[in-house]
This record gives sequence, structure tokens and C-alpha cells, in this order.
Amino acid sequence: MTVRSRFFTEAEGQAVGIENAAAKGDVLLVCEHASATIPQKFGTLGLSPEVLSSHAAWDPGALAVARLLSEKFDATLVYQRFSRLVYDCNRPPESPSAMPVKSEIYDIPGNFDLSEAERFARTSALYVPFHDRVSEIIAARQADGRNVVVVTIHSFTPVYHGRFRKVEIGILHDTDSRLADAMLAGAEGASLTVNRNDPYGPEDGVTHTLRLHALPDGLLNVMIEIRNDLITNEGEQAAIAGFLHELMGKALSSIDE
Amino acid sequence: MTVRSRFFTEAEGQAVGIENAAAKGDVLLVCEHASATIPQKFGTLGLSPEVLSSHAAWDPGALAVARLLSEKFDATLVYQRFSRLVYDCNRPPESPSAMPVKSEIYDIPGNFDLSEAERFARTSALYVPFHDRVSEIIAARQADGRNVVVVTIHSFTPVYHGRFRKVEIGILHDTDSRLADAMLAGAEGASLTVNRNDPYGPEDGVTHTLRLHALPDGLLNVMIEIRNDLITNEGEQAAIAGFLHELMGKALSSIDE
Repeated sequence: MTVRSRFFTEAEGQAVGIENAAAKGDVLLVCEHASATIPQKFGTLGLSPEVLSSHAAWDPGALAVARLLSEKFDATLVYQRFSRLVYDCNRPPESPSAMPVKSEIYDIPGNFDLSEAERFARTSALYVPFHDRVSEIIAARQADGRNVVVVTIHSFTPVYHGRFRKVEIGILHDTDSRLADAMLAGAEGASLTVNRNDPYGPEDGVTHTLRLHALPDGLLNVMIEIRNDLITNEGEQAAIAGFLHELMGKALSSIDE
Repeated sequence: MTVRSRFFTEAEGQAVGIENAAAKGDVLLVCEHASATIPQKFGTLGLSPEVLSSHAAWDPGALAVARLLSEKFDATLVYQRFSRLVYDCNRPPESPSAMPVKSEIYDIPGNFDLSEAERFARTSALYVPFHDRVSEIIAARQADGRNVVVVTIHSFTPVYHGRFRKVEIGILHDTDSRLADAMLAGAEGASLTVNRNDPYGPEDGVTHTLRLHALPDGLLNVMIEIRNDLITNEGEQAAIAGFLHELMGKALSSIDE
């Protein structure tokens, strides 16, 4: 039998990581693919160490950049402490990508033929508490009369299905493009290639977190995708965080006006 | 924004009902369709009072019979306090029946075109806490070295899609038929028409609770379906509970031997 209390070892703790909980800024950072950690009970999911440390398991560099942005914006950061290979918190349970049997070119044997009990255990232990926590934070701030700006931080692989991607920063949005529009306007002439809904867009199902937490109440929101070869070390991460801080800061100011 | 804490009014409380929590018996009773109550925030789901009190909204009589069995077996009873029209706790989130747009012949307008946020709110508020609670009870008993027998109690309408059903008691099972077999053997020659996997069976997706809580650990289990015209008042409910108590009691004894 699989229950939430048996899902993680005592040392592993729980699914949701929170940093800067008492932050005063409007921005709420969310990082669904922060970690490559597989809970011990799942072993390796039948994967090689190479795959388990690759972009299939997590968004390399995304959490590091999110932490820097958390400081710069005085923003609370909510992140998932376990790999999206077990449950991808940017997907609803009914999506085949939530507990994927394939990621890019890699089969995920540990996700083949999951029973209803196994699916429930992952949904209950990883997905629901993550989004419950984000919801609770937003609700508490709304109750205090605060604004909330929902910003999700992701990274993407420069080579996907054998093709190199030229885009360096993706500014993604769903039906509410206010913040994305302002950021894209601000990025004109920038040193980095900043594109709209590239390399993914809402049609790929990647705006689930925005749909859950920003769209229903009309909160400003954006999803940021960073090409992961640009954030491989602390220096690079600081440079990209600085770029995004300026871009988003100006965009938020322009919307306030 | 929709969060669990805003899902119910204070007076409504929470999703899961528990009775006889300190029971000493092995049987654990589960009643997923115990209630026709719609949380206030959903209004009427666009339905008439007639539909809202019909078998589409709940299993009439099932909770009453489950309560009588809870006494007779000294069994803990876990039941859902809200209607399956909002979330059917005997279905996983990926099932179209979990938040049905149609029930038998009735359209459910309040379930049309649900957003991802609306689906998440129902999954988080109604489905996950229900099965988490069942799991926790089972885990605690297993930790104490106790046996657990999972028994779900349902009722069905005598007339479905215009056809009358002759079966009076359905004994339903999934891949583990031990308890169902013993009950069906004991029902031979009974005054009631007792059938196997009738009017539903595992191919209809109705054994979700058994799959979640009994099959993974090999716990004895059965799903009982009672034709609801046989349990319309206290006298009838007592008679059926007595019949089921004897049938299941003998079956459990025969398996123990």
C-alpha cells in the first residue's frame, strides 16, 4: 500500500521547498522542475546515471536562477524537491506527461504500466501538496490585500531531438500576456535572443501552473524558459538573473504606471 | 483562485466523514457515494431538484446500510460528505467519470468545460483527502499488526436507461475474488438475487477504491451493490444489513479456516 507518509523516507522529507517565505515583494516564484532527485522508493526508474542527471530529470540551473531572483525581488520561492520524472508538477494528472513513459528520446521503464494506486500515490505526495501550497500562499496574500505576480522559472536543453535551438530566453504566456508583452517589448535590441512562446507555448500544455494560480484571478504572470547552456555555473546564473531582474522589473513598473 | 481552504464554507466542514474510528473489527467500510450534498460554491450545477436528489447525485440508502454494518462488524466507516456529481471518489482524476458531464440521461451543466484550476480544486478538496484518509487508516492498522478487509458499499437504481434490473445484490470484485467468491457461494439459494459483477464490474471502472487500497497489499476486499428500491426506509435497510452481515460474516469465517 502506498500512502503519502510512506512515500518519502524520513531523511527525504516532503515534496515542497519554500524559501524566503516572509518576503515582502509582489513576485511569487515557482520552480516545478528544480530537482533531479528521485525518491528512494523508486530507485533509478530503470534509467542510467546519465539520463538521471540530464534535462529529462530536471531543469538544470533553473533553481539557482530562481534563488537569485528571489533575493533581487524579495520574492517567495516555491519549488518541487523531487524530479519531474516521478511527477511533473507542471502537468495535471490526466496528462500523459504527468508521469511520463517517455521523455524526449528516453524511455522511462519505472513509469510503464503504472497501477491506479501508484498514480494516486504520486498525485497525492507530489502534485497536490505542491499546488495546494502555492494556492495557500496566494490566498493568504490576497487576504492581506497584497498583489501577487506569478512567475515560473524553467530551463530548456539547447539540443532537442538533434536540433539546436537559437532562442536563449523564452517568455511564455497563456491567455493573459500583459507581463510577457511588456517583457518582450523591453527585450528589443537586447544582447540575448528573447522570443515569445519559444521553444514551447501554451499549446504544449506548459502553462498548467499559470492556469491554476494566475488566470482564474487575473494575476499578472509569466513563464520564463532559459536555455540551460547559459546557466551552467554561478557566474552565468548571476548574469542571467541580472538580465531577467532588469527586464521583469522594468516590465512590472511599466504596467504599474 | 480556488484552494481547498476556500472550497467549503465553514459550516460545510471538510470532505471526509469518519464513524466508529476506534473500531476493533477487521472490516473497513468505505462509502464513496454517501451524500447528495453539493458544496454551496457550486450552486445546483445547473440541475433540477429532482436530479439533485436522484441516484445521479448519490447512492440512496448506501450510507444508512453502511452505518448498520459498521455497528454489526465493529467496523470503521469512511464516507464522502459531498456528491459524486462534484467529484466521484470511486474514479481517478484521469477518468471522464470523475467530474462527469453526463450521468445516465442527465447532462451536468456545472461540469461542462471545467478549467484546469477547477479540476485541480475538486481533486485536491474531495478526492485526494478521501483516499489519503483511507490509506492512513489502513497503514496505521498494518503497523499495529491488524488485518484489514476493505468493503465498499454502494446502491444502484432499479431502472437504468429505461430497463429494469433483476439483480438485487451485486457482489463485485477485481482481480482478487476471494471474499466475493465466498460470499457468492454462501448466497446460493438465498431469498435475494445475488449476482457476481452485476450490474457493474471492474471493466466499468468501478473498482478504483479496491485497486487503490486492497489489491496492492493483497487485503481481502469486496464491493457491494444494493438495488436502492430495497433500502428505502429503516426497516428495509436493517433487513438488508442483516442479510449482508450474515453473508459476509460467514464468508470471512470460511476464509479464516
